[in-house]
Amino acid sequence: MSIDVLIEKIKKTENPSVAGLDPRLEFIPQYIRNATYERYGKTLEGAAEAIWEFNKGLIDALYDVVPAVKPQSAFYEMYGLPGEGALHKTVKYAREKGLYIILDVKRNDIGTTAQAYSSAYIGRTEVDGELADACPVDCVTVNPYLGTDGVRPFVDDCKIYGKAIFALVKTSNPSSGELQDKLSDGKPFYEHVAELVNVWNEDTVGRYGYGAVGAVVGATYPEQAKVLREIMKHSYFLVPGYGAQGGGARDVKNSFNDDGLGAIVNSSRGIMCAYKKDGWKEEQFAEAARAEAIRMRDEICSVL
Amino acid sequence: MSIDVLIEKIKKTENPSVAGLDPRLEFIPQYIRNATYERYGKTLEGAAEAIWEFNKGLIDALYDVVPAVKPQSAFYEMYGLPGEGALHKTVKYAREKGLYIILDVKRNDIGTTAQAYSSAYIGRTEVDGELADACPVDCVTVNPYLGTDGVRPFVDDCKIYGKAIFALVKTSNPSSGELQDKLSDGKPFYEHVAELVNVWNEDTVGRYGYGAVGAVVGATYPEQAKVLREIMKHSYFLVPGYGAQGGGARDVKNSFNDDGLGAIVNSSRGIMCAYKKDGWKEEQFAEAARAEAIRMRDEICSVL
Repeated sequence: MSIDVLIEKIKKTENPSVAGLDPRLEFIPQYIRNATYERYGKTLEGAAEAIWEFNKGLIDALYDVVPAVKPQSAFYEMYGLPGEGALHKTVKYAREKGLYIILDVKRNDIGTTAQAYSSAYIGRTEVDGELADACPVDCVTVNPYLGTDGVRPFVDDCKIYGKAIFALVKTSNPSSGELQDKLSDGKPFYEHVAELVNVWNEDTVGRYGYGAVGAVVGATYPEQAKVLREIMKHSYFLVPGYGAQGGGARDVKNSFNDDGLGAIVNSSRGIMCAYKKDGWKEEQFAEAARAEAIRMRDEICSVL
Repeated sequence: MSIDVLIEKIKKTENPSVAGLDPRLEFIPQYIRNATYERYGKTLEGAAEAIWEFNKGLIDALYDVVPAVKPQSAFYEMYGLPGEGALHKTVKYAREKGLYIILDVKRNDIGTTAQAYSSAYIGRTEVDGELADACPVDCVTVNPYLGTDGVRPFVDDCKIYGKAIFALVKTSNPSSGELQDKLSDGKPFYEHVAELVNVWNEDTVGRYGYGAVGAVVGATYPEQAKVLREIMKHSYFLVPGYGAQGGGARDVKNSFNDDGLGAIVNSSRGIMCAYKKDGWKEEQFAEAARAEAIRMRDEICSVL
């Protein structure tokens, strides 16, 4: 089943982490930006081309070290159509390099619209009888606020196409508790979401004991992660908030099961901006990213 | 302030409704599709070109009858980059025709990423000191699940750029109650969201008494709309679910205030597929859409 593809890549690389590709311009070495501005000006095209060059360098340096990459859609959408083009090129290139692609889009809508989103990313798009691929990835993030009929189309496509999703359960940001921690029937709201994840995850469990419906659980809330790990025994966790947002290796431990599986930890800025620390040169951004990805892998594996 | 722009267009057209542009292929007259397939094949390009032709015809027929259009991003994203291109062309054309544009994207993320989404649609994008417009619209929908720091960047941009947002409060779909109706402190969850909307809406209230932070409240839940109307006195409501989803004119009445303002009712399929009813020919899709938009306007106004 679908999540097995990710698990097998994690086993092969012995690395339960994912490199976030959130290419804010200030993360990109100035020499790359200057070169694309020379050709396209300080425009959306110039920014998009710099993003693509940067991502390509990162993927080349990381593809045999990390099992997966996670592009964050917002940082492509903000550069308009050229930015979307850079996302499509990045996705295609990462796929060619054998990386598992988790597209962080947090989509959500009513059933028929959720089906359209699912077709865009994990299903296929029908054009009067012909099937086409709009932006094919392995996995997307979804927001659960609309309930089952906003998530079911994704789950159905996961079953058909061998894909996976991560539903937001407990997010990593400071204000995540405002709504997610509200108590209902004596339990915080995120636990109710976790119970729905279990329902959605039924009938999708693969050979390693995990299903197609995973959960986003922030590294910044390790105690909540412990409880959620107990509730969603058969769900993989996507764990943001490690590194720049303050979560450490011990904080992410709670998201793993005793089998050493069950979670994949994201680092975006830590890997992308590694070259800004420790005396690296700008031109060494890819080497620095690789070194940081290896350091992170070893740090996480040391606590499992 | 920002929502005033919408209110003035509603007053001018005497029409508190919005035409949804959710261009599913099966909504598009076959003769339009056949023409674009002849040039591009049954491909993403062929679909995107058909969408653009259809939208252009609809906008030409509707721009002086409705104050606003609401493209649903999913139905463009599902056609990949060509689909995104059709969305950008549609947005540009609607703006040229003077329509208020509510882009239905339901975006949500942690603070810094929410800022990127806001830049994409209602703010501006900085490229090393130069400002660019990625996909400029008047208003977007947002999902509140991440709390204040996922919404604040949008609100800040609303203040700077005179724009508006609608936060999901009570959605129109059948399973919206699974999570949104959960009781906490004796109140359903959506009321807690409504209280947050009030906080976000502070300091944005314009000349008609409404602020930049509105709420999505489904026509399919009229009793809840009544309560929410009381709680969020200064928020405009975006009301989906009218027509095809089952809500009628009496159901949407509760979303309006006594001043006849306070809500804008969406119809997508009803307007886009009007030509499929009442003996219209395919070639008359635009006339049929206009007639339905006028009928809907009159129906809603008759109960206010």
